[in-house]
Amino acid sequence: MSDPLLQRLCIIGVGLIGGSLARALRQAGAVGEIVGCGRNREQLQKACELGVIDRFETDAATAVKGADVVVLAVPLGSMRRIMERIAPVMDENCILTDVGSVKGSVVADAAAVFKTPPANFVPAHPIAGTEQSGVEASFAELFRQRRVILTPCQTTAPEAVARIRSMWEACGAEVVEMEVMHHDEVLAATSHLPHMLAYALVDTLARMDDSKEIFDYAAGGFRDFTRIASSDPDMWHDICLANHDALVKMLEAFSDDLRQLADAVKRADSDFLKQTFIRAKQARDAFCHKNGG
Amino acid sequence: MSDPLLQRLCIIGVGLIGGSLARALRQAGAVGEIVGCGRNREQLQKACELGVIDRFETDAATAVKGADVVVLAVPLGSMRRIMERIAPVMDENCILTDVGSVKGSVVADAAAVFKTPPANFVPAHPIAGTEQSGVEASFAELFRQRRVILTPCQTTAPEAVARIRSMWEACGAEVVEMEVMHHDEVLAATSHLPHMLAYALVDTLARMDDSKEIFDYAAGGFRDFTRIASSDPDMWHDICLANHDALVKMLEAFSDDLRQLADAVKRADSDFLKQTFIRAKQARDAFCHKNGG
Repeated sequence: MSDPLLQRLCIIGVGLIGGSLARALRQAGAVGEIVGCGRNREQLQKACELGVIDRFETDAATAVKGADVVVLAVPLGSMRRIMERIAPVMDENCILTDVGSVKGSVVADAAAVFKTPPANFVPAHPIAGTEQSGVEASFAELFRQRRVILTPCQTTAPEAVARIRSMWEACGAEVVEMEVMHHDEVLAATSHLPHMLAYALVDTLARMDDSKEIFDYAAGGFRDFTRIASSDPDMWHDICLANHDALVKMLEAFSDDLRQLADAVKRADSDFLKQTFIRAKQARDAFCHKNGG
Repeated sequence: MSDPLLQRLCIIGVGLIGGSLARALRQAGAVGEIVGCGRNREQLQKACELGVIDRFETDAATAVKGADVVVLAVPLGSMRRIMERIAPVMDENCILTDVGSVKGSVVADAAAVFKTPPANFVPAHPIAGTEQSGVEASFAELFRQRRVILTPCQTTAPEAVARIRSMWEACGAEVVEMEVMHHDEVLAATSHLPHMLAYALVDTLARMDDSKEIFDYAAGGFRDFTRIASSDPDMWHDICLANHDALVKMLEAFSDDLRQLADAVKRADSDFLKQTFIRAKQARDAFCHKNGG
C-alpha cells in the first residue's frame, strides 16, 4: 500500500466542515493520522468516539506538532487568535490552510500574524455546508461535486497550492482558484446576502403580533426559503464583520431593487412586475438546469 | 359500493392545483365524473390522456352543466371573467369554490358578478404547491397533511362549507376556517413576501456584471432559497395585484427591518447582529420542529 497523501493532518475546529473533511479524507484513504483540536473537550471526545479524529489536543500549539497540513476550521473571528498561538511553533514545511467563508479577512489575519503572508499558507473555501453545525452533523460526502475555491496570495508556493488542491480533490470536490477580493464579492452575492434576507424575514415575522399563527400557515416554500435562517448565529455574525464592505454593497444594491419592486406593486405596474418575475425565473431555471435541479 | 362524495366535479383550470385535486379525489374514490375546462385544448387533451379528467369543454358555461361542485383553479386575474361566464347558467344547488392564493379579491369578484355573494360560494385556498406548473406536474399527494383555508362569507350556507370541507379532507388535507382579510394578511407574510424577495434577489444577481460567474458559485443554500423564484410569473403578477394592500404593508415592514440590519452590518454592531440571528434561528427551528423539518 502506498503512503497516504497526508501523514498527519491537524484540524483545528472539529465541527460540520472540519469533521466532514476528516471523514472524507479517511474514507478516501488519503490520510494517516488525524489530530483534532478545539476548546470543547466533550465535543472532541465525541469526535474520537465517532472515529472522525484519532486523538485530540485542546492547545493548538501542541496539536500542530509534526503535522504536514494544518486546517483552520474555526469561525472567522477566531482565526487570528489561533494563528498567533501556532505561528511560533509551526514546522516550516507544514502547510497551513483554512475553510473560512470570507478570504480577505483571513489573508489579513495571516499577514498581521506572520508579517508577510507565508509561502505555505493556502487560503481556501469549500462551498458546501448545511444549516446544521457540530461534529454530529458531519458526513464524508459533504464536499462531493462541490466547489472549493482557493485564493492563493502572490507569496504562496505553487507546491503548497497543489497539495491543498489534491486534499480537496480526494474529498470529491472540484477545485478552482480565484482572486481574494473577487471571492468575497461573489460570496457576498450568492451566500451572505441570502442569509441576511432569510434571517431578516424570519425575524420580521417572528416579531409580528400574530407570529404564532403566521408560522402555522407557512408551507413548503417558506421552509425551503428560510432553511438558511437556521444557520449558526455566531458564525454568521463573524461573516458579517469579516466581509463587511462587500456585504454592505450587496445589501444596498438589493434594497434599491426591492424598493423598485415594492413601488411597482404599489402602483400596480403590471409590465414591471411581469418582466421582473420572468427575468428571475429564467435566471433561476438556467442556474438549476446547470446544477441538477 | 356507496355513492361517491361528488357525482360530477367541474374543474376550470386543469394545472398543478386543479390537476392534483382531480387526481387526489379520484384516488380517494370520492368523485364520479370529472369535467375539465380551460382555453388550451392541447393541455386538456393531455389531462385526459393522463387520466386526470374524464372529458373536457373549452367553454365554461357548457362545462359547469350538471356539476354538483365547480372549482375555479385559474389565475386570480381570470376569476371574474369565468364567474361572469358561468353565473347565468349555474344550477342553484351547485357549489362554487376556488383555490386562489388571495381571498379578498375573489370574494369581491363574486360580489360584483353575483350581486350578493351567493350562499353556495365557498372561497378556499389550499396551502400547497411547488414551483412547477401545468397538469404534468400534478400529483395526488400534493394536499396530504397540508392546510386548506376556507374563508366563508356571512352569506355562505353552512352545508356548502361542510361539503367543500369534506372534499379537501378526502384529499388528505387539514381544513381550517379564517376571516377573509386575515387570510390575506397571513399569506402576504408567509408566502407573498418571500416570493417577492426570491424574485428580487435572483433578478438583482442576474443583472450584475459578473452574473454568470456569480451563479456558478452558488451552492445548495442558494438553490433552496431561490426555489420559489422559479414559480409562474403570470400567477405571481396576479397575486401582487390581488393582494396589493397586504403585500405593500409587508414589503414596507420588511424593508424597514432590512434597513436596520444593513445599518447594523455597516456599523459592525455585534450585539444587534447576534440578537437578530439568534431570534430568527429560534423562530425558524421552532417552526420546523412543528412542521417536521
